[in-house]
Amino acid sequence: MGKNKIVVALGGNALGNNPEEQRELVKETAKPIVDLIEAGNTVIVAHGNGPQVGMINLAMETSSKSKEHTPSMPFPECGAMSQGYIGYHLQNAIREELLNRNMDVPVATIITQVIVDKDDSAFNNPSKPIGSFYSKEEADELSKKGYVMKEDAGRGYRRVVPSPKPKDVAEKETIETLIEKGHVVITVGGGGIPVVKDGNKLIGVPAVIDKDFASSKLAEIIDADYLIILTAVEKIAINYGKPDVKWLDKLSIDEANKYIKEGHFAPGSMLPKVQAAIEFAGSKEGRSALITSLEKAADGILGKTGTRIMI
Amino acid sequence: MGKNKIVVALGGNALGNNPEEQRELVKETAKPIVDLIEAGNTVIVAHGNGPQVGMINLAMETSSKSKEHTPSMPFPECGAMSQGYIGYHLQNAIREELLNRNMDVPVATIITQVIVDKDDSAFNNPSKPIGSFYSKEEADELSKKGYVMKEDAGRGYRRVVPSPKPKDVAEKETIETLIEKGHVVITVGGGGIPVVKDGNKLIGVPAVIDKDFASSKLAEIIDADYLIILTAVEKIAINYGKPDVKWLDKLSIDEANKYIKEGHFAPGSMLPKVQAAIEFAGSKEGRSALITSLEKAADGILGKTGTRIMI
Repeated sequence: MGKNKIVVALGGNALGNNPEEQRELVKETAKPIVDLIEAGNTVIVAHGNGPQVGMINLAMETSSKSKEHTPSMPFPECGAMSQGYIGYHLQNAIREELLNRNMDVPVATIITQVIVDKDDSAFNNPSKPIGSFYSKEEADELSKKGYVMKEDAGRGYRRVVPSPKPKDVAEKETIETLIEKGHVVITVGGGGIPVVKDGNKLIGVPAVIDKDFASSKLAEIIDADYLIILTAVEKIAINYGKPDVKWLDKLSIDEANKYIKEGHFAPGSMLPKVQAAIEFAGSKEGRSALITSLEKAADGILGKTGTRIMI
Repeated sequence: MGKNKIVVALGGNALGNNPEEQRELVKETAKPIVDLIEAGNTVIVAHGNGPQVGMINLAMETSSKSKEHTPSMPFPECGAMSQGYIGYHLQNAIREELLNRNMDVPVATIITQVIVDKDDSAFNNPSKPIGSFYSKEEADELSKKGYVMKEDAGRGYRRVVPSPKPKDVAEKETIETLIEKGHVVITVGGGGIPVVKDGNKLIGVPAVIDKDFASSKLAEIIDADYLIILTAVEKIAINYGKPDVKWLDKLSIDEANKYIKEGHFAPGSMLPKVQAAIEFAGSKEGRSALITSLEKAADGILGKTGTRIMI
């Protein structure tokens, strides 16, 4: 089952809440990734950054308001920092696991910008909460700066940003060049740094691109065979949490769309994963998406488990 | 004067103190870099990160001690963040300048680890100040955590870290692959994330690798023709600040070493640049190092200005 080009999308939640946790967790993450490489596949690693970019953004905000007066840091720049921070640990852990198995495969993290459409309707409806919680008064102040603030389930006010759809990956030629040479590439961290095109310029925008959609778009661009979306469960289910729960092995795109309409998948959780899987699997004959857990990724590629989505 | 492989080492001080300044300054930086590319050269961009990693480290420290309790961030991780932050702006500015001249050359930032020797004598003598200033009492507390704290010119106490010599670049194969394809690579940011080898592991260490030495080592590894070290002046001088100041056009390694012995170059300023230039120029016949200002880089390569150091 080797010789496939596989994009693996890791969840940011699986990376822990601080550098020590992250350094430990990436060791576990590296194993199934190297299993796939050892089986002869070319692996491209994408990852989320929700907790990490939130932490960096909060630290930068907090320090900028302290007596230290460090500069306020825009959200795209925080995303770039999170790519460096997470990539450093991931590339190191994958490198070590490869060497432990006597495999000399170069690994690198590419700081990656993902292009979104400035007319994306998401910009009219910011919905993704980022950063810290504020009081009503603080939120009103921040609104004057142009931030959109929303009340968050009784816990206070938070800034919300849009979640536009990925259209292109600015660094795709770099990624393709490295893949062709069999390198392991870590890219589109946190869904990529969101940028809009303005002539020859790329302008960073305060937004969060869903990392599963970004991974799906990347997989399409680089003509991958598989998109593996890693999550907390081995398979996806319909009637989840009900007595007639049914775990799914295979799913056609038509079935998947039907289940989405019937409301089987939770928005902000399994729904975007299934949608991203459909987008990739539906983009060309022969492409399949697999949703499974990190531990089962290698078995999933062998067809032993996970939920596979294809045309 | 095209077709050369050129490592350009930018100073971190030339990148400004906040994201807005940096975004403006990299536009100026991009022009001479693209001049070199337009002339047919392959350009590898290395850069410092002193002010930037200091700011990130300070923000992370400040926030971790605030009521937000964000995690404390080790220095190597702050370095990785600074590579993402600076690389994002640099790659964008270079990309835009290339497109403005109708050149379609991919640009990317590689998160780069630079390997140092764990027995480097610098580890016995930490001397490079990083982060914020502390009172005597705070410094004593931090000393108990294992930090080395030193009084800094009457301004308070600061943490000092070692500045070991670069031995290897962990991501060199990635860099070489991209260079071969004519891509512009931004790498060894801030001298690289300093790591020591422990079997198959790379372990981040709190240290600062001089970015000129790291650039020199990188230039040697990738078999570059030129190392251009950019600084605030067009040429280097002997008897600097004296009536008999003499600006230098060319310098043999023997001459350079003689001037070093005579104390012409300021430690922590021009001295490491001259030393890094000597190391690269002396590593192989035909290699030359050029010390000049950003604005004069293209003229310098044409032999019109700057100080050239060769065997």
